[in-house]
Formats: sequence, C-alpha cells, structure tokens
Amino acid sequence: MTRVLVWNEDIHETKNDEVRAIYPKGIHGAIAALLSSQSDLSVRTATLADPEHGLTKDTLESTDVLIWWGHLAHHLVDDAVVARVQARVLQGMGLIVLHSGHLSKIFRALMGTTCNLRWREADDREVIWTVAPDHPIVAGVPQPLVLPRHEMYGEFFDIPTPDELVFVSNFTGGEVFRSGCCFKRGKGRVFYFSPGHETYPIFHRADIGQVLANAVRWAHVQTPHAVETRTSPNAPTNWFIKAEA
Amino acid sequence: MTRVLVWNEDIHETKNDEVRAIYPKGIHGAIAALLSSQSDLSVRTATLADPEHGLTKDTLESTDVLIWWGHLAHHLVDDAVVARVQARVLQGMGLIVLHSGHLSKIFRALMGTTCNLRWREADDREVIWTVAPDHPIVAGVPQPLVLPRHEMYGEFFDIPTPDELVFVSNFTGGEVFRSGCCFKRGKGRVFYFSPGHETYPIFHRADIGQVLANAVRWAHVQTPHAVETRTSPNAPTNWFIKAEA
Amino acid sequence: MTRVLVWNEDIHETKNDEVRAIYPKGIHGAIAALLSSQSDLSVRTATLADPEHGLTKDTLESTDVLIWWGHLAHHLVDDAVVARVQARVLQGMGLIVLHSGHLSKIFRALMGTTCNLRWREADDREVIWTVAPDHPIVAGVPQPLVLPRHEMYGEFFDIPTPDELVFVSNFTGGEVFRSGCCFKRGKGRVFYFSPGHETYPIFHRADIGQVLANAVRWAHVQTPHAVETRTSPNAPTNWFIKAEA
Amino acid sequence: MTRVLVWNEDIHETKNDEVRAIYPKGIHGAIAALLSSQSDLSVRTATLADPEHGLTKDTLESTDVLIWWGHLAHHLVDDAVVARVQARVLQGMGLIVLHSGHLSKIFRALMGTTCNLRWREADDREVIWTVAPDHPIVAGVPQPLVLPRHEMYGEFFDIPTPDELVFVSNFTGGEVFRSGCCFKRGKGRVFYFSPGHETYPIFHRADIGQVLANAVRWAHVQTPHAVETRTSPNAPTNWFIKAEA
Repeated sequence: MTRVLVWNEDIHETKNDEVRAIYPKGIHGAIAALLSSQSDLSVRTATLADPEHGLTKDTLESTDVLIWWGHLAHHLVDDAVVARVQARVLQGMGLIVLHSGHLSKIFRALMGTTCNLRWREADDREVIWTVAPDHPIVAGVPQPLVLPRHEMYGEFFDIPTPDELVFVSNFTGGEVFRSGCCFKRGKGRVFYFSPGHETYPIFHRADIGQVLANAVRWAHVQTPHAVETRTSPNAPTNWFIKAEA
Repeated sequence: MTRVLVWNEDIHETKNDEVRAIYPKGIHGAIAALLSSQSDLSVRTATLADPEHGLTKDTLESTDVLIWWGHLAHHLVDDAVVARVQARVLQGMGLIVLHSGHLSKIFRALMGTTCNLRWREADDREVIWTVAPDHPIVAGVPQPLVLPRHEMYGEFFDIPTPDELVFVSNFTGGEVFRSGCCFKRGKGRVFYFSPGHETYPIFHRADIGQVLANAVRWAHVQTPHAVETRTSPNAPTNWFIKAEA
Repeated sequence: MTRVLVWNEDIHETKNDEVRAIYPKGIHGAIAALLSSQSDLSVRTATLADPEHGLTKDTLESTDVLIWWGHLAHHLVDDAVVARVQARVLQGMGLIVLHSGHLSKIFRALMGTTCNLRWREADDREVIWTVAPDHPIVAGVPQPLVLPRHEMYGEFFDIPTPDELVFVSNFTGGEVFRSGCCFKRGKGRVFYFSPGHETYPIFHRADIGQVLANAVRWAHVQTPHAVETRTSPNAPTNWFIKAEA
Repeated sequence: MTRVLVWNEDIHETKNDEVRAIYPKGIHGAIAALLSSQSDLSVRTATLADPEHGLTKDTLESTDVLIWWGHLAHHLVDDAVVARVQARVLQGMGLIVLHSGHLSKIFRALMGTTCNLRWREADDREVIWTVAPDHPIVAGVPQPLVLPRHEMYGEFFDIPTPDELVFVSNFTGGEVFRSGCCFKRGKGRVFYFSPGHETYPIFHRADIGQVLANAVRWAHVQTPHAVETRTSPNAPTNWFIKAEA
C-alpha cells in the first residue's frame, strides 16, 4: 500500500466561480477521486489553510508520495515547512509537482534553478508525447495524449537536465515543453508534470489519472538504501571490514 | 511472474578443473540456483552448445529477462542470433550482462563502442559502492559489498555514459570501475554488472544473488509502451485526431 | 584549424530536377559553401561514388569532423567503410549526422538502436527550440529558429537518451521531435541534427549554417585523452606507480 | 580573456601554522599562482573578510568564472551574497567548487541536496581516474593522477546525478568517490573537484593546475543563449512570427 498525500493551496476554488464549477471539491479533491479506484493507493489531502499547512512531521513521516498543486500562494508557504518537506524527500519520500507548482518553494529548492518558463492562456491544444517507452510512468498512456484546450507552457524551462525525460508537449501556437520530467534527489524521487491549469477539467480525465497513478508508484521508493545521508560521517580506516568477515 | 533465461557459454567449466570445482553445474546452473528462492521468478538456462545457442525465436519471445555470461567464445556466437537478441531487447526484453560479457557481440552491438577496459588477475579485493540510493537494484545490498578476492576491471571502460550509474568499485591495486550500469535501449533495459570471474565463487554469494534478483525485476519492463518502433511509420496530418474524439 | 569532411550520397541531386534546382552543386556543395566563411574551418567533400566512398584511411585520419547526409543509399555504403568510420569516431573524430542520416549504417552502429521515427511530407512549419542555453551549439541561434516548411520528423525517435538534448522541434501537425542531440561515444562526439530534407532549401540558411559551424567546433575534440581504448590492456599491480614518483 | 575570481574563506591559513607553512599566501594565493602562467586567464582573489566577502554586484558582473574554497565558515557567508552568486551562475557565470566547499551554502543551494559525504583524515593515497576521455577538463591530465597522501572523501556523495562525470577516485582504505563532476544550472556551468585539503600541498601541483585551468575554460560559457530566464514571460500567440518573416 502506497500512502499518498495530495496537497493543494485551495485558493482559486474558493475565490473563482469558474474554477469552483470545475472543481467543486477542490483540485485536491479531484485528484484524490482520480486515484481512488487504485486499490494499492491510500489517499489523504491537505491544504495551505491547515495547521502547518497539513504537513506536520508526523504526517510527512507517514506519507510515501506527496502530490503538490500551488499557484497564487507560493510565498505564503512557511519556509520551515518547505525545509521539512525537502528533508523528507531527500530521505526517500516521493514528490509529484503539478503545473504551476513549478514556481513553488519546494520545487525551486530541490532544483536549484529559477524554474521559470514561457506561458500563455489561449486555449492551445496540447499534444503530449511519450519519449521514454520503457518507463513505468507511460504504461497504458496513449501516444499521443491530447488535451483539446490548455494553458501553454513553453521552453526554455529553467530546470536542471531531468534524470529521465518522459513527456514532451506540442502546443498549437508553435511551442514545445518538457512536460514530464523525473529527478532523483538524495534517496527520493521527484516527478514534474505540467498539465493541470485550474480553468480546464484536466484532473477529471482518466488518462491523466493513469499518469498520476503510474507516477505515484514510480516515486514510491519501496526500500531506500540504508546508507546514512543526513550527516557527513567520519569513517576510520577499515570501518567496513567487519562487514567483510 | 518474471521469466528469466540464464545464458552461459559453458566452456571454462568443461575444460578447467579449477572452474568446474567452483561451478560443478556451470555458471548458469549456479546463477539459476541463486535465483531459485525468488518466488516471482521462473528460471531456465541455455548454453552455446544448444541448437541456435538455445536462443530461438520462441524462447526469446517467452523470456522477460536474459542473463548473459561469456568469455572465450564471443566470436562463436552466431551473428544472426545476436541480431535476434538485439531486436528482442529493443522490443522490451531485459538483458543483464555479467563480467567478461562486456566484450560479447550483443553488448557491443547495443552500446556502439569498443567496451574495452583495463584488467588484472591478481586477487585484488573489490569493494563495491552504491551511488544511487533510490535505485531498486540496490535494495537490501550492503554498503559496501566486499569481494575479498576478484579479478580487477578498471577504467577507462569504453561504454556510453550509463543512463543510471548504480555501483562503483574500488580495487586494492588503486583502480576504480563503474561496476553497475543501467542502459535504456529502445523499449528495453540493459544492466551491466562486472562481478563474476570464473575462478572465484562469486555466484554462490547471497549478496550477489540479491543484486541479480533486483536487477531482473528492474529489467523486466512490465508494460513497454505500445508505440511502434520496428518501422519508421508515415504519419498523415491529423492521423491521431480520432484518438482525441 | 578544424578539418571538416562533408559526405553526401549525392543521388537525389542527380536524379531529381526539383532537388537539383535547389542544390545544383549537391547538398555537400551547399553545406561546404555554408561553412566557407568560417576562417577556422577547412572543408572538403566526398560522395558515395568516390573510391571507398571517399572515406579512405588517410582521409579519415586527416579529418577532425565528418558531416553525413544520406537517404536512398544507406544499404550501398560498404560495411568495411562503416566499421572504419566508427573506429575513427571512437578514437576522437567528430561526427555530425543530418536529417535522413538517422537510418544510416554508421549512426545505427553507434547508437545500437533502430533509430526509427515518425515522418510526413506535408509542408509543416517546424519551430526549433533551444533547451540547453549554456551549450556552444546554440550560440547565436535564434529562439526559436523557424523553418516555414519542412518534412515532419516525430517521436518516438528510437535513440538512446542523448548525453545532451539541445533542440526540440514543434510541427504544425501536432508532433514534437528531439531535433538536436549530442552523444559521446568512446573519445569522440556525435551530433544528430534533423533539419535538411532534400526538397527544401534548408542548407542555404544562415541560421542553419550557424548551428552547423557551432556543431563542428563542439564535435572537434582538440585533445582526446591519451588513454588507450583500442584494446583491453592487462595492467599488472603497481603499473602506474612510476607515474607517481 | 577569461576573468577568474578565486574566493577563499582564508581562516585555516591565519590560525594554523601547519597550513600557513604550506600556503603562506593563502589557498587563494596558491590557486592564483597556479593559474598565473595561463595567458588567456586574468585572475583576481577575494576572501570572507572583504566587504560583502569581495562578491559585490560589480565584481560578479565582471567575473566569468568563480572558484570557491571554504570549510570552517560556511555559516558565516551572508545569505544575500549567496543568493547573488546563485543568480549570477544561473545567468551564465561559471563556478568551480573545491574540496570542502561541498558543504558551502552556494553549492547546496545549486544542488538542492545535502551534499553530505563520508570522510577520513588518514593519509590515504588518492588515485584519480578519468572516465570521460572526450572532455576538455581532462586534456593533458595523466591517467591516473596520483595524490600520494590526501584526505579521504567517499561515497555516498549526496548530489544530483552529475550532467557529466569526469573523474572517479580510489582511496587506499577501500573507498571510491566521484571526484570531478560537471553540472549545468540555468545558463551557467558548475564543476565540483574534490582534491584540495588544507594540510596537503595539492594546490602547488602542476597536474592540479592543469585540471583547474581546463575547468575554468570549460566553465566559461562564452555566449550564453540570449533566452530570458529571469522571469516567466507571457507569450501571446504568434509572438515569434516576426522573427520568421
């Protein structure tokens, strides 16, 4: 069983009628519903308004994969909570960052770059292509996956080179985007997936649910290596010889 | 269930008393025995002397992961069989190449490089370090894994940069080696693992068995993407629009 | 001074009036002309019809970077010549493979994969985006570089993951393509660049000339490491200690 | 001409007689001297005690490559200066981080990981192997480069997978280390090189000087791509069409 926590800032939904009509239970609620049919996943949700944003030490310790959606309120996420999430990722928790989460503090802290990109709200068609056919995240995903209307996100996307590039998108207006990117950080795994603008019903689609379920399973490192990474240990000569005996 | 085929040229064992004493059932027999306790793996073996080297079309089609050990007889492996194995890997079969298999035709064909390296038979101690703590191949593997005596394989190892570098080895004589390397080729996965010289009882060790079982599971791509890769298909404008409807 | 050899099969130009109108001196002649203004490059050409396809041992030894265009006659390129070119690349010669050269014997031998892709001749607009802004190949290249009409090449492109992904293309019909890919093989460097269909005047464009000149300089490894890679040398214990003294 | 700035915290040298005996003009002075024979490099130095640590906006703007040595005083480097250096790297300045700089704020901010490692002060012999023979950083570097006595730095080194792995070290005690690692971040380049403990005369060696000079040239991106990365620009449909005309 993989324990998933879906985090959402939950602001558009409360302030904007159009968004609330699409996501009456919030984007977090829609994502949780998308994953609810997967018998190997147990799903909880948390939002910015919760105490400690719902990201307490205990909650993170009992989370295998955290899904993150944010946009308007990146600056309102407490730095101490961001540091706690980062430390937990480096110890082996999976992290899936969606859409406008590219500018979240947690994603920028893990990437080390600006994570800036080009964008346009203009109902472009987005066509998402698999470029890693061996990857578990693409299992059962159509080639291509077509979003009839979506916000454009375009290159240059200022991220480190992904450890694995999984999806690349075409937009009607002529842009391309690295829309599915895997990163390994410490003992943990991070997946950035660009679909999910709040004014389009992206998180009601079964194909997007398939990608997210696949991504959760990929990001869940079942047995992170026991090697100590929280400190820089002093290692006397022959420290490992007993293991050899 | 993952269907494993262990392939061995099986020559040292028949000609050399020292090797036969270590591997009375052949290196292939020892590897099959190492994996026999894994309830999710079904294991068969094949050798150079079998018709078509035991690598017929039907056998390959019913194999999820092929393990390869060869040394003296690389040149005796039929080119048509090599092409068949390569095509099957590119369609999604996993391949694990062991030790002196670095100079096998199949590995060189998949890599495109000479795959040459430095070597010495001198009872060096080999200490194998995990450098990818999130990787499924290292689950349960000690840090470090120590082989008290082994043949030295050293850099420069003339391979393409691995898609994932998993293990790096230290040798008493001062060399290092990229001893565990993951490659993705087409819809398939390839793992090169350098331990396994015929005059040392490497394939009787539980820790090596753990690496091999992990590697088999990693190399078994359960659902390679349905995208066609055997041809270069002509794609008329709007060919994918029906999928969108 | 970088010594460039432009190789072209030179068949379309001799058989097809439309192509000859665009490239009266052959595609090789056009590429040579594009590079002729670069004072640090000396450029020669060779074609399929030349003795040994113009790729003799002496010629290759005096070439720093080889540019390759082929399409109809991949199967007519002699296997021994292909092996000679491959060996020279692994020893440090640069190789730039253009457009339909993706199915050439030399490119497939170096990649180990089918190198298949999706394609369409339909006057798509191709928009080429830089995704590696630190890379020398993109210096002075517009963002984006727009080809008003070109053949479509689309994913999945069956290549190993590039060591560096430099360009990604958008096509009007909805496809994307990894159109600029760097690979390191042995002591040499390989750049695949997809523009250059014979029925479009691609190799008369200054921006394409800029990319090619940049690519030639990148692919020219001025001082490949002296390490021996043509054999697997035996290395006695302490073989390198004199160097230490 | 490449404008190099060598930064050193300059504390060991002022407090410890042993270190001062090795580096009477400071580690920064020794590195500057090592590079002084390179006619294409102009070298300045700065230390922690300088106003703004010698890393003012003007100084950074007129620096092509920054070399960083720190150990005891990482916590004393001002966060605002670190942010300024990081922004400058992402805009195209090269950064070379030496030895104990692995725990500097600037390196950790760019990596996103703990950058922890294993260590031992015990006069191990370090043998440094080239694993990227095409790379400009290894030009003229011996295979192997041997440091008769050095501090041990061992795996697991908690960094993202390097974009290019250039050197791997062997230590007498049995450890290995990824001792030369290239990273691309934004429009800039970062090289981590582990030799350089303060109690060994590493920065008086000509072979180390060769590596540093090569690294400076590699890290100097002559023409970072003009693409805007400081913001996420809105891009109206057809915004790039004029460029096409």
